Amino acid sequence: MEKINSLQNRKVKEWASLQQKKYRDAQGRFLIEGEHLIQEALEAGCVEAIISTGDQPFRFDTVYEVTDAIMKKLSRNPSGAEYIAVCRFPVFPARDETRVILLDGVQDPGNLGTLIRTAVSFGFDHVWCSAGCADLYNEKTIRSTQGALFRIPVERTDLKNTVQELKQKGFTVIGTALRDSVPFASLSVPDQAAFVFGNEGNGITAEILDLCDRCVRIEMDGFESLNVAVAGGIVMYRFRKGI
Amino acid sequence: MEKINSLQNRKVKEWASLQQKKYRDAQGRFLIEGEHLIQEALEAGCVEAIISTGDQPFRFDTVYEVTDAIMKKLSRNPSGAEYIAVCRFPVFPARDETRVILLDGVQDPGNLGTLIRTAVSFGFDHVWCSAGCADLYNEKTIRSTQGALFRIPVERTDLKNTVQELKQKGFTVIGTALRDSVPFASLSVPDQAAFVFGNEGNGITAEILDLCDRCVRIEMDGFESLNVAVAGGIVMYRFRKGI
Repeated sequence: MEKINSLQNRKVKEWASLQQKKYRDAQGRFLIEGEHLIQEALEAGCVEAIISTGDQPFRFDTVYEVTDAIMKKLSRNPSGAEYIAVCRFPVFPARDETRVILLDGVQDPGNLGTLIRTAVSFGFDHVWCSAGCADLYNEKTIRSTQGALFRIPVERTDLKNTVQELKQKGFTVIGTALRDSVPFASLSVPDQAAFVFGNEGNGITAEILDLCDRCVRIEMDGFESLNVAVAGGIVMYRFRKGI
Repeated sequence: MEKINSLQNRKVKEWASLQQKKYRDAQGRFLIEGEHLIQEALEAGCVEAIISTGDQPFRFDTVYEVTDAIMKKLSRNPSGAEYIAVCRFPVFPARDETRVILLDGVQDPGNLGTLIRTAVSFGFDHVWCSAGCADLYNEKTIRSTQGALFRIPVERTDLKNTVQELKQKGFTVIGTALRDSVPFASLSVPDQAAFVFGNEGNGITAEILDLCDRCVRIEMDGFESLNVAVAGGIVMYRFRKGI
Protein backbone atom coordinates (compact mmCIF):
# COMPACT_ATOMS: atom_id res chain seq x y z
CA MET A 1 0.00 0.00 0.00
CA GLU A 2 1.30 3.42 -0.95
CA LYS A 3 0.41 6.59 0.95
CA ILE A 4 -0.21 9.82 -0.90
CA ASN A 5 -0.56 13.09 1.00
CA SER A 6 -0.17 15.76 -1.64
CA LEU A 7 -2.85 17.12 -3.93
CA GLN A 8 0.02 17.89 -6.32
CA ASN A 9 1.00 14.23 -6.63
CA ARG A 10 1.25 13.13 -10.27
CA LYS A 11 -1.08 10.16 -9.74
CA VAL A 12 -3.72 12.33 -8.07
CA LYS A 13 -3.65 14.71 -11.03
CA GLU A 14 -3.93 11.81 -13.45
CA TRP A 15 -6.90 10.32 -11.58
CA ALA A 16 -8.62 13.71 -11.32
CA SER A 17 -8.32 14.13 -15.08
CA LEU A 18 -10.59 11.07 -15.47
CA GLN A 19 -13.51 13.27 -14.41
CA GLN A 20 -13.42 14.58 -17.98
CA LYS A 21 -14.61 12.52 -20.92
CA LYS A 22 -11.70 13.39 -23.19
CA TYR A 23 -9.15 12.01 -20.71
CA ARG A 24 -11.25 8.91 -20.03
CA ASP A 25 -11.42 8.20 -23.73
CA ALA A 26 -7.72 8.89 -24.25
CA GLN A 27 -6.67 6.64 -21.36
CA GLY A 28 -9.44 4.02 -21.59
CA ARG A 29 -9.94 4.35 -17.85
CA PHE A 30 -12.54 5.76 -15.48
CA LEU A 31 -13.32 6.15 -11.79
CA ILE A 32 -16.11 4.51 -9.84
CA GLU A 33 -17.34 4.98 -6.28
CA GLY A 34 -19.33 2.83 -3.89
CA GLU A 35 -18.78 -0.64 -2.52
CA HIS A 36 -21.30 -2.43 -4.75
CA LEU A 37 -19.96 -0.96 -7.99
CA ILE A 38 -16.35 -1.63 -7.02
CA GLN A 39 -17.25 -5.23 -6.18
CA GLU A 40 -18.77 -5.65 -9.64
CA ALA A 41 -15.67 -4.13 -11.25
CA LEU A 42 -13.38 -6.46 -9.29
CA GLU A 43 -15.38 -9.50 -10.38
CA ALA A 44 -15.08 -8.33 -13.98
CA GLY A 45 -11.31 -7.90 -13.61
CA CYS A 46 -11.45 -4.23 -14.57
CA VAL A 47 -9.87 -2.65 -11.48
CA GLU A 48 -6.36 -1.16 -11.70
CA ALA A 49 -6.19 0.47 -8.30
CA ILE A 50 -8.23 1.17 -5.22
CA ILE A 51 -7.99 4.56 -3.54
CA SER A 52 -9.07 4.81 0.06
CA THR A 53 -8.78 7.11 3.06
CA GLY A 54 -8.32 4.21 5.46
CA ASP A 55 -9.49 0.64 5.89
CA GLN A 56 -11.17 -0.83 2.85
CA PRO A 57 -13.04 -4.13 2.43
CA PHE A 58 -11.69 -5.28 -0.95
CA ARG A 59 -9.23 -8.08 -1.67
CA PHE A 60 -6.92 -6.32 -4.06
CA ASP A 61 -3.21 -5.61 -4.06
CA THR A 62 -2.88 -2.15 -5.55
CA VAL A 63 -4.21 0.20 -2.91
CA TYR A 64 -3.42 3.87 -2.34
CA GLU A 65 -4.17 5.50 0.97
CA VAL A 66 -4.95 9.18 0.45
CA THR A 67 -5.96 12.18 2.58
CA ASP A 68 -9.56 13.39 2.92
CA ALA A 69 -8.67 16.39 0.76
CA ILE A 70 -7.47 14.16 -2.08
CA MET A 71 -10.55 11.97 -1.79
CA LYS A 72 -12.78 15.03 -1.95
CA LYS A 73 -10.98 16.18 -5.09
CA LEU A 74 -11.49 12.78 -6.78
CA SER A 75 -15.05 12.08 -5.64
CA ARG A 76 -18.17 13.27 -7.50
CA ASN A 77 -20.04 13.14 -4.21
CA PRO A 78 -19.90 16.61 -2.56
CA SER A 79 -19.21 15.03 0.83
CA GLY A 80 -16.48 12.75 -0.52
CA ALA A 81 -16.29 8.97 -0.76
CA GLU A 82 -14.80 6.17 1.33
CA TYR A 83 -13.18 4.48 -1.62
CA ILE A 84 -12.78 4.94 -5.32
CA ALA A 85 -11.57 2.45 -7.90
CA VAL A 86 -9.62 3.23 -11.05
CA CYS A 87 -11.01 0.93 -13.76
CA ARG A 88 -10.14 0.02 -17.31
CA PHE A 89 -12.94 0.16 -19.87
CA PRO A 90 -14.36 -3.39 -19.83
CA VAL A 91 -13.74 -5.64 -22.83
CA PHE A 92 -15.68 -8.79 -23.62
CA PRO A 93 -14.89 -11.88 -25.68
CA ALA A 94 -16.99 -12.31 -28.83
CA ARG A 95 -19.94 -14.66 -28.42
CA ASP A 96 -23.02 -15.73 -30.32
CA GLU A 97 -25.66 -13.08 -29.93
CA THR A 98 -29.42 -13.34 -30.32
CA ARG A 99 -30.82 -10.33 -28.44
CA VAL A 100 -29.35 -6.87 -28.73
CA ILE A 101 -30.52 -3.30 -28.26
CA LEU A 102 -29.62 -0.21 -30.24
CA LEU A 103 -29.99 3.23 -28.72
CA ASP A 104 -30.49 6.14 -31.09
CA GLY A 105 -29.72 9.37 -29.22
CA VAL A 106 -30.72 8.39 -25.67
CA GLN A 107 -29.48 11.57 -24.05
CA ASP A 108 -30.24 11.21 -20.39
CA PRO A 109 -27.46 9.37 -18.49
CA GLY A 110 -30.04 7.91 -16.08
CA ASN A 111 -32.04 6.45 -18.98
CA LEU A 112 -28.92 5.07 -20.66
CA GLY A 113 -27.70 3.44 -17.45
CA THR A 114 -31.14 2.03 -16.66
CA LEU A 115 -31.46 0.51 -20.14
CA ILE A 116 -28.07 -1.21 -19.73
CA ARG A 117 -29.09 -2.49 -16.28
CA THR A 118 -32.35 -3.88 -17.70
CA ALA A 119 -30.58 -5.46 -20.69
CA VAL A 120 -28.34 -7.45 -18.34
CA SER A 121 -31.24 -8.47 -16.08
CA PHE A 122 -33.13 -9.89 -19.06
CA GLY A 123 -30.14 -11.69 -20.56
CA PHE A 124 -29.52 -9.43 -23.57
CA ASP A 125 -26.15 -9.77 -25.30
CA HIS A 126 -25.09 -6.35 -26.52
CA VAL A 127 -25.95 -2.65 -26.37
CA TRP A 128 -25.04 -0.36 -29.27
CA CYS A 129 -25.19 3.42 -28.80
CA SER A 130 -25.28 6.13 -31.46
CA ALA A 131 -22.89 9.06 -31.18
CA GLY A 132 -25.79 11.14 -29.80
CA CYS A 133 -26.21 8.99 -26.69
CA ALA A 134 -25.01 10.07 -23.25
CA ASP A 135 -21.46 9.05 -22.30
CA LEU A 136 -21.27 5.55 -20.83
CA TYR A 137 -18.58 6.56 -18.32
CA ASN A 138 -20.44 9.62 -17.07
CA GLU A 139 -20.82 9.21 -13.30
CA LYS A 140 -24.65 9.30 -13.52
CA THR A 141 -24.74 6.67 -16.26
CA ILE A 142 -22.47 4.36 -14.28
CA ARG A 143 -24.55 4.78 -11.13
CA SER A 144 -27.77 3.99 -13.02
CA THR A 145 -26.29 0.78 -14.44
CA GLN A 146 -25.85 -0.52 -10.86
CA GLY A 147 -22.73 -2.30 -12.12
CA ALA A 148 -24.34 -3.82 -15.22
CA LEU A 149 -21.81 -2.06 -17.45
CA PHE A 150 -19.26 -4.66 -16.32
CA ARG A 151 -21.44 -7.49 -17.63
CA ILE A 152 -22.43 -6.54 -21.16
CA PRO A 153 -20.60 -5.03 -24.11
CA VAL A 154 -21.77 -1.47 -24.67
CA GLU A 155 -20.34 0.12 -27.78
CA ARG A 156 -20.57 3.53 -29.39
CA THR A 157 -21.08 3.05 -33.09
CA ASP A 158 -22.35 4.41 -36.38
CA LEU A 159 -25.84 3.03 -35.83
CA LYS A 160 -26.66 2.86 -39.55
CA ASN A 161 -23.72 0.56 -40.22
CA THR A 162 -24.50 -1.58 -37.21
CA VAL A 163 -28.14 -2.01 -38.26
CA GLN A 164 -27.00 -3.13 -41.71
CA GLU A 165 -24.43 -5.54 -40.27
CA LEU A 166 -27.00 -7.03 -37.90
CA LYS A 167 -29.45 -7.53 -40.76
CA GLN A 168 -26.76 -9.32 -42.75
CA LYS A 169 -26.20 -11.62 -39.78
CA GLY A 170 -29.88 -12.55 -39.81
CA PHE A 171 -31.21 -10.24 -37.10
CA THR A 172 -34.72 -8.83 -37.36
CA VAL A 173 -34.42 -5.12 -36.53
CA ILE A 174 -37.45 -3.79 -34.66
CA GLY A 175 -38.03 -0.11 -34.06
CA THR A 176 -40.31 1.39 -31.43
CA ALA A 177 -42.47 4.33 -32.50
CA LEU A 178 -45.98 5.68 -32.01
CA ARG A 179 -46.79 6.15 -35.71
CA ASP A 180 -46.81 3.66 -38.60
CA SER A 181 -46.33 0.80 -36.19
CA VAL A 182 -48.15 -2.36 -35.15
CA PRO A 183 -49.24 -3.21 -31.59
CA PHE A 184 -46.37 -4.68 -29.58
CA ALA A 185 -48.50 -7.66 -28.48
CA SER A 186 -48.85 -8.72 -32.14
CA LEU A 187 -45.07 -9.11 -32.57
CA SER A 188 -43.88 -12.71 -32.79
CA VAL A 189 -40.51 -13.71 -31.38
CA PRO A 190 -37.73 -13.81 -34.00
CA ASP A 191 -34.66 -16.01 -33.39
CA GLN A 192 -32.35 -13.03 -33.52
CA ALA A 193 -33.84 -9.69 -32.56
CA ALA A 194 -32.38 -6.17 -32.40
CA PHE A 195 -34.62 -3.59 -30.74
CA VAL A 196 -34.12 0.11 -31.40
CA PHE A 197 -35.06 2.82 -28.90
CA GLY A 198 -34.91 6.49 -29.72
CA ASN A 199 -34.29 9.91 -28.25
CA GLU A 200 -36.41 11.08 -25.28
CA GLY A 201 -38.04 13.91 -27.19
CA ASN A 202 -37.87 12.91 -30.85
CA GLY A 203 -37.78 9.12 -30.95
CA ILE A 204 -35.78 7.21 -33.55
CA THR A 205 -34.25 9.22 -36.42
CA ALA A 206 -35.93 8.82 -39.82
CA GLU A 207 -32.74 7.35 -41.28
CA ILE A 208 -32.69 4.47 -38.78
CA LEU A 209 -36.46 4.01 -38.80
CA ASP A 210 -36.29 3.44 -42.58
CA LEU A 211 -33.89 0.55 -42.03
CA CYS A 212 -36.06 -1.25 -39.46
CA ASP A 213 -37.72 -4.50 -40.57
CA ARG A 214 -40.72 -3.83 -38.37
CA CYS A 215 -41.95 -1.09 -36.12
CA VAL A 216 -44.00 -1.61 -32.97
CA ARG A 217 -45.85 0.63 -30.56
CA ILE A 218 -46.54 -0.16 -26.94
CA GLU A 219 -50.31 -0.08 -26.52
CA MET A 220 -51.43 2.88 -24.40
CA ASP A 221 -54.64 4.47 -23.27
CA GLY A 222 -55.09 8.10 -24.29
CA PHE A 223 -52.03 9.70 -22.66
CA GLU A 224 -49.40 8.22 -24.98
CA SER A 225 -46.22 8.94 -23.16
CA LEU A 226 -43.64 6.50 -21.87
CA ASN A 227 -40.15 7.08 -20.57
CA VAL A 228 -37.67 5.37 -22.93
CA ALA A 229 -36.19 3.20 -20.17
CA VAL A 230 -39.70 2.02 -19.22
CA ALA A 231 -40.49 1.22 -22.88
CA GLY A 232 -37.18 -0.67 -23.06
CA GLY A 233 -38.08 -2.64 -19.94
CA ILE A 234 -41.46 -3.69 -21.34
CA VAL A 235 -39.92 -4.83 -24.63
CA MET A 236 -36.91 -6.59 -23.10
CA TYR A 237 -39.03 -8.36 -20.48
CA ARG A 238 -41.18 -9.96 -23.17
CA PHE A 239 -38.16 -10.98 -25.26
CA ARG A 240 -35.93 -11.97 -22.34
CA LYS A 241 -33.72 -15.01 -22.65
CA GLY A 242 -34.87 -18.22 -21.00
CA ILE A 243 -38.45 -16.97 -21.37
CA MET B 1 -52.29 41.87 -17.89
CA GLU B 2 -50.43 43.31 -14.93
CA LYS B 3 -46.77 44.34 -15.10
CA ILE B 4 -44.44 43.69 -12.18
CA ASN B 5 -40.94 45.18 -12.14
CA SER B 6 -39.80 44.82 -8.57
CA LEU B 7 -38.23 41.77 -6.97
CA GLN B 8 -39.71 43.10 -3.71
CA ASN B 9 -43.29 42.85 -5.02
CA ARG B 10 -45.53 40.92 -2.62
CA LYS B 11 -46.72 38.54 -5.34
CA VAL B 12 -43.18 37.76 -6.43
CA LYS B 13 -42.22 36.88 -2.87
CA GLU B 14 -45.31 34.70 -2.52
CA TRP B 15 -44.55 32.85 -5.77
CA ALA B 16 -40.89 32.40 -4.83
CA SER B 17 -41.94 30.83 -1.53
CA LEU B 18 -43.54 28.00 -3.55
CA GLN B 19 -40.06 26.68 -4.26
CA GLN B 20 -40.23 25.27 -0.71
CA LYS B 21 -42.37 22.24 0.13
CA LYS B 22 -43.77 23.74 3.35
CA TYR B 23 -45.22 26.74 1.55
CA ARG B 24 -46.57 24.58 -1.29
CA ASP B 25 -48.33 22.37 1.24
CA ALA B 26 -49.62 25.35 3.23
CA GLN B 27 -50.99 27.13 0.15
CA GLY B 28 -51.95 24.07 -1.93
CA ARG B 29 -50.18 25.65 -4.89
CA PHE B 30 -47.05 25.07 -6.91
CA LEU B 31 -45.12 26.42 -9.89
CA ILE B 32 -44.54 24.72 -13.22
CA GLU B 33 -42.38 25.63 -16.21
CA GLY B 34 -42.45 24.69 -19.87
CA GLU B 35 -45.10 24.96 -22.55
CA HIS B 36 -46.19 21.31 -22.54
CA LEU B 37 -46.66 21.14 -18.77
CA ILE B 38 -48.55 24.45 -18.67
CA GLN B 39 -50.83 23.24 -21.49
CA GLU B 40 -51.64 20.11 -19.47
CA ALA B 41 -52.34 22.21 -16.37
CA LEU B 42 -54.65 24.53 -18.35
CA GLU B 43 -56.62 21.57 -19.71
CA ALA B 44 -56.98 20.28 -16.17
CA GLY B 45 -58.23 23.69 -14.97
CA CYS B 46 -55.45 23.96 -12.38
CA VAL B 47 -53.84 27.25 -13.48
CA GLU B 48 -54.27 30.38 -11.35
CA ALA B 49 -51.88 32.68 -13.15
CA ILE B 50 -49.33 32.74 -15.92
CA ILE B 51 -46.09 34.64 -15.43
CA SER B 52 -44.17 35.65 -18.51
CA THR B 53 -41.40 37.99 -19.62
CA GLY B 54 -43.20 38.90 -22.84
CA ASP B 55 -45.46 37.24 -25.39
CA GLN B 56 -46.92 33.93 -24.31
CA PRO B 57 -48.92 31.38 -26.30
CA PHE B 58 -51.63 30.48 -23.76
CA ARG B 59 -55.30 31.44 -23.79
CA PHE B 60 -55.71 32.55 -20.22
CA ASP B 61 -56.82 35.80 -18.61
CA THR B 62 -54.63 36.16 -15.55
CA VAL B 63 -51.18 37.00 -16.89
CA TYR B 64 -48.34 38.85 -15.19
CA GLU B 65 -45.54 40.32 -17.23
CA VAL B 66 -42.32 40.33 -15.21
CA THR B 67 -38.68 41.30 -15.70
CA ASP B 68 -35.91 38.82 -16.56
CA ALA B 69 -34.58 39.21 -13.02
CA ILE B 70 -37.92 38.18 -11.51
CA MET B 71 -38.22 35.25 -13.90
CA LYS B 72 -34.74 34.10 -12.96
CA LYS B 73 -35.67 34.26 -9.29
CA LEU B 74 -38.80 32.14 -9.86
CA SER B 75 -37.38 29.60 -12.31
CA ARG B 76 -35.58 26.41 -11.26
CA ASN B 77 -33.74 26.49 -14.57
CA PRO B 78 -30.40 28.32 -14.05
CA SER B 79 -30.87 30.21 -17.31
CA GLY B 80 -34.45 31.22 -16.49
CA ALA B 81 -37.72 30.32 -18.19
CA GLU B 82 -40.00 31.90 -20.77
CA TYR B 83 -43.14 31.32 -18.75
CA ILE B 84 -44.19 29.88 -15.45
CA ALA B 85 -47.67 28.95 -14.29
CA VAL B 86 -48.97 29.13 -10.73
CA CYS B 87 -51.14 26.03 -10.24
CA ARG B 88 -53.48 24.69 -7.59
CA PHE B 89 -52.96 21.11 -6.44
CA PRO B 90 -55.22 19.08 -8.77
CA VAL B 91 -58.37 17.51 -7.33
CA PHE B 92 -60.34 14.72 -8.97
CA PRO B 93 -63.93 13.57 -8.64
CA ALA B 94 -64.40 10.11 -7.08
CA ARG B 95 -64.84 7.30 -9.60
CA ASP B 96 -64.97 3.54 -9.68
CA GLU B 97 -61.44 2.22 -9.55
CA THR B 98 -60.08 -1.15 -10.64
CA ARG B 99 -56.34 -0.59 -11.07
CA VAL B 100 -54.24 1.33 -8.57
CA ILE B 101 -50.61 1.48 -7.52
CA LEU B 102 -49.14 1.96 -4.06
CA LEU B 103 -45.62 3.28 -3.63
CA ASP B 104 -43.80 2.37 -0.44
CA GLY B 105 -40.88 4.76 -0.01
CA VAL B 106 -40.03 5.52 -3.66
CA GLN B 107 -37.41 8.15 -2.86
CA ASP B 108 -36.13 9.31 -6.22
CA PRO B 109 -38.27 12.12 -7.73
CA GLY B 110 -37.48 10.85 -11.24
CA ASN B 111 -38.75 7.37 -10.38
CA LEU B 112 -41.88 8.74 -8.70
CA GLY B 113 -42.70 10.98 -11.66
CA THR B 114 -42.01 8.21 -14.17
CA LEU B 115 -44.30 5.79 -12.30
CA ILE B 116 -47.12 8.38 -12.36
CA ARG B 117 -46.56 8.98 -16.09
CA THR B 118 -46.69 5.22 -16.78
CA ALA B 119 -49.80 4.77 -14.63
CA VAL B 120 -51.68 7.33 -16.75
CA SER B 121 -50.44 5.84 -20.03
CA PHE B 122 -51.74 2.41 -19.04
CA GLY B 123 -55.10 3.66 -17.75
CA PHE B 124 -54.54 3.19 -14.02
CA ASP B 125 -56.93 5.00 -11.69
CA HIS B 126 -55.02 6.10 -8.61
CA VAL B 127 -51.53 6.37 -7.13
CA TRP B 128 -51.03 6.19 -3.37
CA CYS B 129 -47.69 7.24 -1.85
CA SER B 130 -46.32 6.47 1.61
CA ALA B 131 -44.92 9.31 3.70
CA GLY B 132 -41.41 8.14 2.70
CA CYS B 133 -41.93 8.86 -1.01
CA ALA B 134 -40.43 11.88 -2.76
CA ASP B 135 -42.56 15.03 -2.83
CA LEU B 136 -45.02 15.10 -5.74
CA TYR B 137 -44.58 18.83 -6.28
CA ASN B 138 -40.80 18.70 -6.33
CA GLU B 139 -39.68 20.21 -9.65
CA LYS B 140 -37.94 16.97 -10.72
CA THR B 141 -40.98 14.84 -9.94
CA ILE B 142 -43.24 17.16 -11.93
CA ARG B 143 -40.88 17.15 -14.90
CA SER B 144 -40.70 13.35 -14.90
CA THR B 145 -44.51 13.04 -14.93
CA GLN B 146 -44.57 14.92 -18.27
CA GLY B 147 -47.89 16.39 -17.13
CA ALA B 148 -49.46 13.11 -16.01
CA LEU B 149 -49.91 14.50 -12.49
CA PHE B 150 -52.84 16.54 -13.85
CA ARG B 151 -54.61 13.36 -14.99
CA ILE B 152 -54.57 10.98 -12.05
CA PRO B 153 -55.17 11.35 -8.31
CA VAL B 154 -51.88 10.96 -6.44
CA GLU B 155 -52.28 10.95 -2.69
CA ARG B 156 -49.91 10.77 0.24
CA THR B 157 -51.32 8.33 2.75
CA ASP B 158 -50.73 5.93 5.61
CA LEU B 159 -50.10 3.00 3.29
CA LYS B 160 -51.10 0.38 5.86
CA ASN B 161 -54.57 1.90 6.22
CA THR B 162 -54.96 2.26 2.47
CA VAL B 163 -54.01 -1.38 1.85
CA GLN B 164 -56.61 -2.48 4.39
CA GLU B 165 -59.28 -0.21 2.88
CA LEU B 166 -58.55 -1.49 -0.62
CA LYS B 167 -58.81 -5.09 0.55
CA GLN B 168 -62.19 -4.34 2.14
CA LYS B 169 -63.33 -2.91 -1.20
CA GLY B 170 -62.43 -6.18 -2.91
CA PHE B 171 -58.99 -5.34 -4.31
CA THR B 172 -56.32 -8.01 -4.58
CA VAL B 173 -53.13 -6.42 -3.23
CA ILE B 174 -50.03 -7.63 -5.05
CA GLY B 175 -46.52 -6.90 -3.84
CA THR B 176 -43.36 -7.06 -5.92
CA ALA B 177 -40.32 -8.66 -4.31
CA LEU B 178 -37.44 -10.98 -5.18
CA ARG B 179 -37.95 -13.41 -2.28
CA ASP B 180 -40.95 -15.52 -1.28
CA SER B 181 -42.70 -14.61 -4.49
CA VAL B 182 -44.14 -16.34 -7.54
CA PRO B 183 -43.14 -15.62 -11.17
CA PHE B 184 -44.96 -12.60 -12.54
CA ALA B 185 -46.09 -14.52 -15.64
CA SER B 186 -48.04 -16.93 -13.41
CA LEU B 187 -50.22 -14.15 -12.00
CA SER B 188 -53.80 -14.16 -13.25
CA VAL B 189 -55.69 -10.90 -13.74
CA PRO B 190 -57.95 -9.99 -10.79
CA ASP B 191 -60.93 -7.68 -11.37
CA GLN B 192 -59.57 -5.12 -8.96
CA ALA B 193 -55.82 -5.04 -8.51
CA ALA B 194 -53.53 -2.90 -6.35
CA PHE B 195 -49.82 -3.25 -7.10
CA VAL B 196 -47.23 -2.26 -4.51
CA PHE B 197 -43.72 -1.09 -5.43
CA GLY B 198 -41.04 -0.49 -2.84
CA ASN B 199 -38.01 1.62 -2.04
CA GLU B 200 -35.08 1.69 -4.50
CA GLY B 201 -32.65 0.07 -2.08
CA ASN B 202 -34.79 -1.91 0.34
CA GLY B 203 -37.98 -2.82 -1.49
CA ILE B 204 -41.34 -2.98 0.26
CA THR B 205 -41.35 -2.70 4.07
CA ALA B 206 -42.07 -5.93 5.99
CA GLU B 207 -45.22 -4.40 7.47
CA ILE B 208 -46.77 -3.79 4.03
CA LEU B 209 -45.43 -7.03 2.53
CA ASP B 210 -47.25 -8.96 5.30
CA LEU B 211 -50.54 -7.39 4.20
CA CYS B 212 -50.18 -8.31 0.51
CA ASP B 213 -52.47 -11.05 -0.83
CA ARG B 214 -49.82 -12.22 -3.25
CA CYS B 215 -46.24 -11.42 -4.04
CA VAL B 216 -44.67 -11.62 -7.49
CA ARG B 217 -41.15 -11.37 -8.87
CA ILE B 218 -40.27 -10.27 -12.37
CA GLU B 219 -38.36 -13.14 -13.94
CA MET B 220 -34.71 -12.24 -14.48
CA ASP B 221 -31.55 -13.93 -15.65
CA GLY B 222 -28.70 -13.92 -13.14
CA PHE B 223 -28.23 -10.19 -12.56
CA GLU B 224 -31.43 -9.57 -10.60
CA SER B 225 -31.67 -5.83 -10.60
CA LEU B 226 -34.41 -3.64 -11.99
CA ASN B 227 -35.09 0.04 -11.55
CA VAL B 228 -38.42 0.45 -9.72
CA ALA B 229 -39.95 2.54 -12.52
CA VAL B 230 -39.00 -0.16 -15.05
CA ALA B 231 -40.53 -2.87 -12.83
CA GLY B 232 -43.65 -0.70 -12.54
CA GLY B 233 -43.82 -0.34 -16.31
CA ILE B 234 -43.62 -4.09 -16.89
CA VAL B 235 -46.36 -4.78 -14.35
CA MET B 236 -48.67 -1.96 -15.44
CA TYR B 237 -48.28 -2.80 -19.14
CA ARG B 238 -49.53 -6.34 -18.55
CA PHE B 239 -52.44 -5.16 -16.41
CA ARG B 240 -53.29 -2.08 -18.46
CA LYS B 241 -56.90 -1.16 -19.02
CA GLY B 242 -58.46 -2.05 -22.35
CA ILE B 243 -55.97 -4.92 -22.64
